[in-house]
Amino acid sequence: MSEEKPTFITAGEEFDRDMTYIPDRITHEARKPEHGPVEGELWPVEPGRYRLVAAPACPWANRSLIVRALLGLEDVLSVGLPAPTHGPASWNFDLDPGGVDPVLGIHELREAYDARFPDYPRGITVPAVVEVASGHVVTNDFPWITHDLFFEWRDHHRPDAPDLWPDDLREEMEEVMDRVFTDVNNGVYRCGFAGSQAAYERAYDRLWAALDWLEERLTDRRYLMGDRLTEADVRLFTTLARFDAVYHSHFKCNRNKLSEMPALWGYARDLFQTRGFGETVDFEQIKQHYYVVQSDLNPSGIVPKGPDPSGWASPHGRERLGPSGA
Amino acid sequence: MSEEKPTFITAGEEFDRDMTYIPDRITHEARKPEHGPVEGELWPVEPGRYRLVAAPACPWANRSLIVRALLGLEDVLSVGLPAPTHGPASWNFDLDPGGVDPVLGIHELREAYDARFPDYPRGITVPAVVEVASGHVVTNDFPWITHDLFFEWRDHHRPDAPDLWPDDLREEMEEVMDRVFTDVNNGVYRCGFAGSQAAYERAYDRLWAALDWLEERLTDRRYLMGDRLTEADVRLFTTLARFDAVYHSHFKCNRNKLSEMPALWGYARDLFQTRGFGETVDFEQIKQHYYVVQSDLNPSGIVPKGPDPSGWASPHGRERLGPSGA
Repeated sequence: MSEEKPTFITAGEEFDRDMTYIPDRITHEARKPEHGPVEGELWPVEPGRYRLVAAPACPWANRSLIVRALLGLEDVLSVGLPAPTHGPASWNFDLDPGGVDPVLGIHELREAYDARFPDYPRGITVPAVVEVASGHVVTNDFPWITHDLFFEWRDHHRPDAPDLWPDDLREEMEEVMDRVFTDVNNGVYRCGFAGSQAAYERAYDRLWAALDWLEERLTDRRYLMGDRLTEADVRLFTTLARFDAVYHSHFKCNRNKLSEMPALWGYARDLFQTRGFGETVDFEQIKQHYYVVQSDLNPSGIVPKGPDPSGWASPHGRERLGPSGA
Repeated sequence: MSEEKPTFITAGEEFDRDMTYIPDRITHEARKPEHGPVEGELWPVEPGRYRLVAAPACPWANRSLIVRALLGLEDVLSVGLPAPTHGPASWNFDLDPGGVDPVLGIHELREAYDARFPDYPRGITVPAVVEVASGHVVTNDFPWITHDLFFEWRDHHRPDAPDLWPDDLREEMEEVMDRVFTDVNNGVYRCGFAGSQAAYERAYDRLWAALDWLEERLTDRRYLMGDRLTEADVRLFTTLARFDAVYHSHFKCNRNKLSEMPALWGYARDLFQTRGFGETVDFEQIKQHYYVVQSDLNPSGIVPKGPDPSGWASPHGRERLGPSGA
């Protein structure tokens, strides 16, 4: 393992996320999926066969932890929880006894990637689904992981699981999720990892235009799509949960705090207090991750004590907009 | 001039401000001062003889700009305004035509230090008072500079200048200013320049204990010392003016924003809107200074666009606590 420190900012350049993931999917009855690798292994849905590796610190992994909880998949899909801080080589299981995931028996997540793809050349990302018996990574394609937890694992959902992808809202939902991804979920990274003042300011302006649009949208809607809790809410929530703790200062997304936007702040607290959301959020791990791992942004490695997270438990007052969708 | 970048954090260590300044003083009728160099030149108060060099970005310099304005000393003591960003060698006059101060005829403030003390070995700090004819620095001892603008330059004050050092409050005022200096003015630097997590957390705890004490003190007092505006208010103000723009994020003083503390935020806006205060504050220069010069804290050099400063002009509601002391 190299001791070299990773860099997240490239001088003069915009941040460009590598969106090439392992496109495999786990599907119902080993159905050949319409999206994903045309050739290759088929991965059937099967209780106990896979382990979801999802660091609570990471917003993309946080999505999968929330969806798993909302759908009641805890008994059919176990989770491994990587530590918030790690070297450049890989996420690892430093928080587990002996530093080893108790099911997969590995210290670094990279081992599951390399087991299937020797010298895997891309980033070792979470969430990742690993087949327990072989120790092989199956996929790290995060938007499809949560999509498939809903559509492919239906037989194993809890009876009262919410319909996270309502057919009648699908088209509008995809549009909303597109903008949320580009300008907000990834937009905060484009602020923080910008390699020039101009690139930062472009990303900042797009972020705040999008947040103003969301603030307005959520003023008279309890959820992004109206009265139903959907995947779109999960995706927005994981960024909002990290906003004041990290993105506001560390990524310079500081026009104002989330807590200064009444509708968004009420919405974020509403979700936080909904079963399946708040218990997946660990503010200390979140702060540790960004402030320690991204050492080119914060060379001292010192982690801020603030902000005070107690506000997340305060009454959100969103009941007036409609019943809970969870 | 060295191209080497300065560092503000020393790993493992607490921040320890070098408080050794040039202890000369400018006194009424060339009186030998009770504090200051026992031997050495006498510097008499004399209109037009000196130039106050005070970068608006710097909180210690900002004090002297405010006191000069409150006392109406503009016509007897001119100012030079160094640019917000500079190399490790010295503050400079990059914003002036040709990069040269129009009165002193120098590019770097260091030239005035070196003129009197060849190869001056300490930091080139602002505020500094320079004798115009000789080009020699007289003093950079900032607490004494504002003290003496009040006590020694009385003959030149405007008729309705406030009594910034009321005799009957002096003892309590010194106590308040002591704690404000240690835990707040310098306390934010001890957070930001801490070389270890433990040193940072100690400074953070002291800062917030002091801010909570000030919040309570200002809940039923219009000014720190009651109904009179004093030097103590000037000293607290310059830190508050930089709080949300810089210290909250850059120095990790982020339990909450100043704007989340009702009494302190009302107090800060009251002063900002008082003649002599707000016009000395330049939020853009302040952000440029910290985020560009302190490159070991912010290697990218990118300056945040936020926060929105428009709130500083909003009604402060402090009239209910008593009449303006300005």
